[in-house]
Amino acid sequence: MILVVNGPNINLLEKRDRDLYGGISAGEIKNELEARAAEDNFDIEWKQSNSEGMLVDFLQKNRHKAQGIIINPAAYSHTSIALLDCFKMLDIPIIEVHLSNPAARGNEREFLTAAAADGVIMGFGAESYLLAYQELKRIIRSGGEQ
Amino acid sequence: MILVVNGPNINLLEKRDRDLYGGISAGEIKNELEARAAEDNFDIEWKQSNSEGMLVDFLQKNRHKAQGIIINPAAYSHTSIALLDCFKMLDIPIIEVHLSNPAARGNEREFLTAAAADGVIMGFGAESYLLAYQELKRIIRSGGEQ
Amino acid sequence: MILVVNGPNINLLEKRDRDLYGGISAGEIKNELEARAAEDNFDIEWKQSNSEGMLVDFLQKNRHKAQGIIINPAAYSHTSIALLDCFKMLDIPIIEVHLSNPAARGNEREFLTAAAADGVIMGFGAESYLLAYQELKRIIRSGGEQ
Amino acid sequence: MILVVNGPNINLLEKRDRDLYGGISAGEIKNELEARAAEDNFDIEWKQSNSEGMLVDFLQKNRHKAQGIIINPAAYSHTSIALLDCFKMLDIPIIEVHLSNPAARGNEREFLTAAAADGVIMGFGAESYLLAYQELKRIIRSGGEQ
Amino acid sequence: MILVVNGPNINLLEKRDRDLYGGISAGEIKNELEARAAEDNFDIEWKQSNSEGMLVDFLQKNRHKAQGIIINPAAYSHTSIALLDCFKMLDIPIIEVHLSNPAARGNEREFLTAAAADGVIMGFGAESYLLAYQELKRIIRSGGEQ
Amino acid sequence: MILVVNGPNINLLEKRDRDLYGGISAGEIKNELEARAAEDNFDIEWKQSNSEGMLVDFLQKNRHKAQGIIINPAAYSHTSIALLDCFKMLDIPIIEVHLSNPAARGNEREFLTAAAADGVIMGFGAESYLLAYQELKRIIRSGGEQ
Amino acid sequence: MILVVNGPNINLLEKRDRDLYGGISAGEIKNELEARAAEDNFDIEWKQSNSEGMLVDFLQKNRHKAQGIIINPAAYSHTSIALLDCFKMLDIPIIEVHLSNPAARGNEREFLTAAAADGVIMGFGAESYLLAYQELKRIIRSGGEQ
Amino acid sequence: MILVVNGPNINLLEKRDRDLYGGISAGEIKNELEARAAEDNFDIEWKQSNSEGMLVDFLQKNRHKAQGIIINPAAYSHTSIALLDCFKMLDIPIIEVHLSNPAARGNEREFLTAAAADGVIMGFGAESYLLAYQELKRIIRSGGEQ
Amino acid sequence: MILVVNGPNINLLEKRDRDLYGGISAGEIKNELEARAAEDNFDIEWKQSNSEGMLVDFLQKNRHKAQGIIINPAAYSHTSIALLDCFKMLDIPIIEVHLSNPAARGNEREFLTAAAADGVIMGFGAESYLLAYQELKRIIRSGGEQ
Amino acid sequence: MILVVNGPNINLLEKRDRDLYGGISAGEIKNELEARAAEDNFDIEWKQSNSEGMLVDFLQKNRHKAQGIIINPAAYSHTSIALLDCFKMLDIPIIEVHLSNPAARGNEREFLTAAAADGVIMGFGAESYLLAYQELKRIIRSGGEQ
Amino acid sequence: MILVVNGPNINLLEKRDRDLYGGISAGEIKNELEARAAEDNFDIEWKQSNSEGMLVDFLQKNRHKAQGIIINPAAYSHTSIALLDCFKMLDIPIIEVHLSNPAARGNEREFLTAAAADGVIMGFGAESYLLAYQELKRIIRSGGEQ
Amino acid sequence: MILVVNGPNINLLEKRDRDLYGGISAGEIKNELEARAAEDNFDIEWKQSNSEGMLVDFLQKNRHKAQGIIINPAAYSHTSIALLDCFKMLDIPIIEVHLSNPAARGNEREFLTAAAADGVIMGFGAESYLLAYQELKRIIRSGGEQ
Repeated sequence: MILVVNGPNINLLEKRDRDLYGGISAGEIKNELEARAAEDNFDIEWKQSNSEGMLVDFLQKNRHKAQGIIINPAAYSHTSIALLDCFKMLDIPIIEVHLSNPAARGNEREFLTAAAADGVIMGFGAESYLLAYQELKRIIRSGGEQ
Repeated sequence: MILVVNGPNINLLEKRDRDLYGGISAGEIKNELEARAAEDNFDIEWKQSNSEGMLVDFLQKNRHKAQGIIINPAAYSHTSIALLDCFKMLDIPIIEVHLSNPAARGNEREFLTAAAADGVIMGFGAESYLLAYQELKRIIRSGGEQ
Repeated sequence: MILVVNGPNINLLEKRDRDLYGGISAGEIKNELEARAAEDNFDIEWKQSNSEGMLVDFLQKNRHKAQGIIINPAAYSHTSIALLDCFKMLDIPIIEVHLSNPAARGNEREFLTAAAADGVIMGFGAESYLLAYQELKRIIRSGGEQ
Repeated sequence: MILVVNGPNINLLEKRDRDLYGGISAGEIKNELEARAAEDNFDIEWKQSNSEGMLVDFLQKNRHKAQGIIINPAAYSHTSIALLDCFKMLDIPIIEVHLSNPAARGNEREFLTAAAADGVIMGFGAESYLLAYQELKRIIRSGGEQ
Repeated sequence: MILVVNGPNINLLEKRDRDLYGGISAGEIKNELEARAAEDNFDIEWKQSNSEGMLVDFLQKNRHKAQGIIINPAAYSHTSIALLDCFKMLDIPIIEVHLSNPAARGNEREFLTAAAADGVIMGFGAESYLLAYQELKRIIRSGGEQ
Repeated sequence: MILVVNGPNINLLEKRDRDLYGGISAGEIKNELEARAAEDNFDIEWKQSNSEGMLVDFLQKNRHKAQGIIINPAAYSHTSIALLDCFKMLDIPIIEVHLSNPAARGNEREFLTAAAADGVIMGFGAESYLLAYQELKRIIRSGGEQ
Repeated sequence: MILVVNGPNINLLEKRDRDLYGGISAGEIKNELEARAAEDNFDIEWKQSNSEGMLVDFLQKNRHKAQGIIINPAAYSHTSIALLDCFKMLDIPIIEVHLSNPAARGNEREFLTAAAADGVIMGFGAESYLLAYQELKRIIRSGGEQ
Repeated sequence: MILVVNGPNINLLEKRDRDLYGGISAGEIKNELEARAAEDNFDIEWKQSNSEGMLVDFLQKNRHKAQGIIINPAAYSHTSIALLDCFKMLDIPIIEVHLSNPAARGNEREFLTAAAADGVIMGFGAESYLLAYQELKRIIRSGGEQ
Repeated sequence: MILVVNGPNINLLEKRDRDLYGGISAGEIKNELEARAAEDNFDIEWKQSNSEGMLVDFLQKNRHKAQGIIINPAAYSHTSIALLDCFKMLDIPIIEVHLSNPAARGNEREFLTAAAADGVIMGFGAESYLLAYQELKRIIRSGGEQ
Repeated sequence: MILVVNGPNINLLEKRDRDLYGGISAGEIKNELEARAAEDNFDIEWKQSNSEGMLVDFLQKNRHKAQGIIINPAAYSHTSIALLDCFKMLDIPIIEVHLSNPAARGNEREFLTAAAADGVIMGFGAESYLLAYQELKRIIRSGGEQ
Repeated sequence: MILVVNGPNINLLEKRDRDLYGGISAGEIKNELEARAAEDNFDIEWKQSNSEGMLVDFLQKNRHKAQGIIINPAAYSHTSIALLDCFKMLDIPIIEVHLSNPAARGNEREFLTAAAADGVIMGFGAESYLLAYQELKRIIRSGGEQ
Repeated sequence: MILVVNGPNINLLEKRDRDLYGGISAGEIKNELEARAAEDNFDIEWKQSNSEGMLVDFLQKNRHKAQGIIINPAAYSHTSIALLDCFKMLDIPIIEVHLSNPAARGNEREFLTAAAADGVIMGFGAESYLLAYQELKRIIRSGGEQ
């Protein structure tokens, strides 16, 4: 099973970023990921929460059955040491994704959680998730090593 | 409807700040606001939470029925990019209030959420809420433009 | 009497900020304030100066006959320790107003004078002055205490 | 009653830090504390949460029946002004504990919550809790003054 | 044609990072990319230089015939405003890749060139190039827009 | 008419900088500028003041009859947000001049006012004014656009 | 003649600092200085202004007839490069005085003007002026050299 | 033997901190520690010095006969790299104690020596030493491992 | 002979900045400069390179035959200590030019090379070169002294 | 008795600073102070040490018999928290002196010890000590209050 | 073979630093080194380039035949991460030399490349190279270990 | 005579750094230096102290009979302005040595004392002293000039 974890305000993606990403919704990303995963016989466990603590809860609770994690921590990328500590405790591959390239938007906040991710993909809109899924599949199938 | 949203520890206001604000409680502020709103045929939806995520949840869930927001993010004024992102996504007027004037207390922390508020009122104790209500009423009645 | 004190370039307000504030002039704000004050039997002493020193002179000279102060220090908000020291010396209520919300415009300069104001109202255009007047009236009538 | 409050990821302590602390689990610490408290006729109210808001909720709700607090805020030590504000509001002794000595690990993040704790004990693994308990007992029995 | 541009010391990749990336050489990445591109009827123009100026020369000279760029600026990621300015001048998609995740290695240097890239992929070793190729192909075929 | 505006201590230029600039006085610069302007049928309105506020007053009062501004803000280059705000309000070309090249003298103070100037010329002694005049003439005659 | 120059708000000294300095007024300091100077056949030219520019004007205008300067720049100690530049231009001894010791009050602002003073005396209340006078007299009588 | 090492001004503890710690003297802490150690058959070697170098001398000279160290470096906590280097060279347990909680007093100076201590206890007045003793005893008896 | 030296990406000027400068190309600036120099019997040696090292090579090689230098270091203004050192070694006048006023565009990067230039002209588009040429001619004809 | 305490390298004053202070030695300052004190029936206890700890020792040991302190901490002004803590513990007047004005020499190091001095006198060479003595005498005779 | 690598502007050493180093030229240093190496049967491969990339090229190309490296990166000491990365990739001893002691000249720029050098020698003029040669010879003959 | 001065903890060198330097002791370095000096008819005066003040004492006392100084200030390299001031006062050559290359160990502390040394040698273990001796001999014999 692959966990796809989304931070605050991602549930309203289609509202927020129509100009940048063509109005794609979180639901559409979820559907696309599930369709691809079904072809590969992977299960997708989709999670969105606005709460830092619930994101940690979710990761802890599912850490044994998950083979890998795609996570878009959104705002918590820059403020959550709790997620950072949680990432460090997990021993499955974690790929952090961002819809846009924060550097290109002049965002200079520190990336806290990325320091414990295996890889980072940012700037491709919804494609960031699909690239992450594809790479995660490759890592899992090759035995989890990169 | 006007959302009046309060961050952590505001529920115990009467305990904390008796000297500064005359011991007024969050409940008294709520009553006062509701009384004034009733005269104006506005509904007040009062919310207090100690959780950053629940404050975002509440704002997201009520964003369609609300005509404006008065928010005292308290401690989250300085740490929550999640609230900041949420503010940016809403297209109704938002007024941030603070009971005291942080600058007067030597508080030099960054104001994160204020960057996405339309206006800020601080330093008048419970009156900060009433001024914000009055101004919000004016903005809503004039068509939401400032 | 209420002093309404304005810093540099506010005298040309209607030129500068038509888009943001509907082209309202400093004179119109003055008239509006005087009209409201007349109803309440308050005198308004309006002052605008581009000079830091003259603003301090004005505050010092009128400190005995004034019951309260509304001040928009404009550029001097960020550079004048002389005004800050003057504020500290006065024992009447001071409300600092700003036409716009500096945080919303990415302005990260330090607020020097606000540290000695009783309250701060910003982001409501000309309404910032009227809210300040209303609050000042309340404070003065309740005996100057907040 | 003594509240023993634990921040994010402490519930999986035995997984995370076997090398450093001998694989002791949060449960074992809890048992040890309860055993010692039983000898002294104190109740221990153990709490762990990954959510900043729930930790504040818990402290607020139990503030009247608690005689003292031992808290390991974990990641929130460095990011939670909400917990800091909550500590300030409580008038019972608070001892902050850390399993390891952050300075020894090159951790240079600011300690936010410690600024409102009465004392801090760090670097002794599970013993940090027991030392805190012993000291808290002494303070409570001597009338809460230090 | 797709430009694949590599900064300083990448030509000795197989020497430097055997432990991290399994000893893959720059030549092997080049071969793999060329094989995939051949299937898609894309040409790959591979370039490695230790000289900042030559990398800018190469990008300028080939800017009309290229449909997209994959670039690993290596050390120049952190120091080259010349590459940043060059990126800004080009109107074809640019994907910046890094073999490792710099944040995970405690590298806190500013990413200068990434500010003008469309997307960034880092942390997947040689796979970073292949993911970038795949995404670039998608963007080019969909008309170059993201 | 062209305004030539000089900040504090420029009136004593010939006293201060004989070694660097050959003892040229502010009066000599004024004469030279007036002679050149007379050939071109331009009027020069020369102003020197030690007061930040009077410099703003002068710029405001003459803003309608002036076709362009040469300004040497001297010390106020580094401290005056009031002049910066004033520059932003004017819609005629402004060229900031400095007699010396501050960078060459190790001066690392922020240039505040230059951020709202159209161009900056520094390091040529009195020639800085003449170059600025010549360029301003060109801009005015070409219709004020650059 | 000795110039005794006072920055903003010093004219209301007796109001502001009764607790610290026994309620001595600027006028009393002036009288005391004049009495002492009379014994020594020195003239005192006392000046107080709230305006940075007028302080520079005063120093420039009197620079030929003055033998030395005692200056308390007050708030302008920390913000006036114009005064700093003026000090540098004068070739008579300048002693900067402060009534209190800013370091003792936790004031960490940069001392700008002191960098061009010959000596600095702070922390002795009105005595700071008298010590400065005495030292200035010694320097003048010994031929202006220190 | 246990070394109890005290930095500058601790010898006058009873003078300095009567309000905070009940006027306990360094001598009383020494007596209390010696009494407890006698029960446990440990020797206490008490040392106080105002000199950084003598503290290093003492630690070096006694490093072979000591089983553990309790140290209150006082002012040298924030300035002594010499003590830090010395701590690193010793292979016996070191517990750093502070009478008060510096964070609670707004002290933001870097803790230099704590980076090489095994544990840190602060904020409990004289009790800080006793807790450190108790913990040190436990570590020594358990074979020096923590 | 006058060296006119241009840093990275200036060769594509007409592509990059059509809106700001009317689409003028580097070639047109070169032609204009050569025409003016021909009238004055000066030779222009034009150089553009994307390579920092080649710019230093060019300056070193031509240092004996050049009478003055106009240089637009472009991106290397902010990163090249090698150019700065080279400037310091040359004893002919150097004028640094910039097409735009970086301060006006919010560019806050340090100007490294300007610290060793005699004068700086920025913000006048192609005119910056012509003003520099004119001033350089004046300096050379007056014997190279400023 | 008045303690006159001197930090490192002051014992070689006559060697170091002949140009600035006319080659006066520490011994000559001592003699001059003793002569003046003899007239006033004060004893001078002169101390110079290169050791931070010995300066603290000296201040502690003589704190009961001293009526006031003149101290030139020299290098320790900027590095000694031990001296700062010691100053805070003493309840007699302390005047810190410096031979030169550090600001005038571009010295930007923090003044640590001055924060606990009653007054500071700097920039008058040996006269700094004599002014401090005179002021100290005044304070002592007026009952130690300032 | 020993590589002796020199960064930008070192080729003109005799022009630049006659006062500091007696006018010695890079060629003379080269001759001296070659003479000494000839006695020891070492070959010297001398390289100077103004181009960062060419320095990296040279180091890469000669890395197999070189037994050790003496490098004076000059300006690139402070800006070249490409050289730093290259140093890290080489497994032969590297000694960085500087003709002068940058700290003594107030140069506070970060030393980037030195972080990957085995040793650093600075401040002895041309002797810095000879000391480095001698030490390198010792290291090579002792088997390359230090 | 050559002074060889060693800062804190160097006396236990053989204990501390066996892995890095082969367990060489301070005594062995001393013997080696004395043997070499004997061949050259130089006396070595070896000093080690853990006390900053005693190091200054030693340098002051021996300044007339010493011909040069080799100093390893160890921890005081980063904290002692007293040593820095002392270095400045001496007019004989001073070479600062470090056993390891601090930059290579990620040590980013400021080098205070090096700013007044003539040369610096670091990273060669005990060889750093021998290289310094050799260079000092050369300087002394050539008349002390470098």
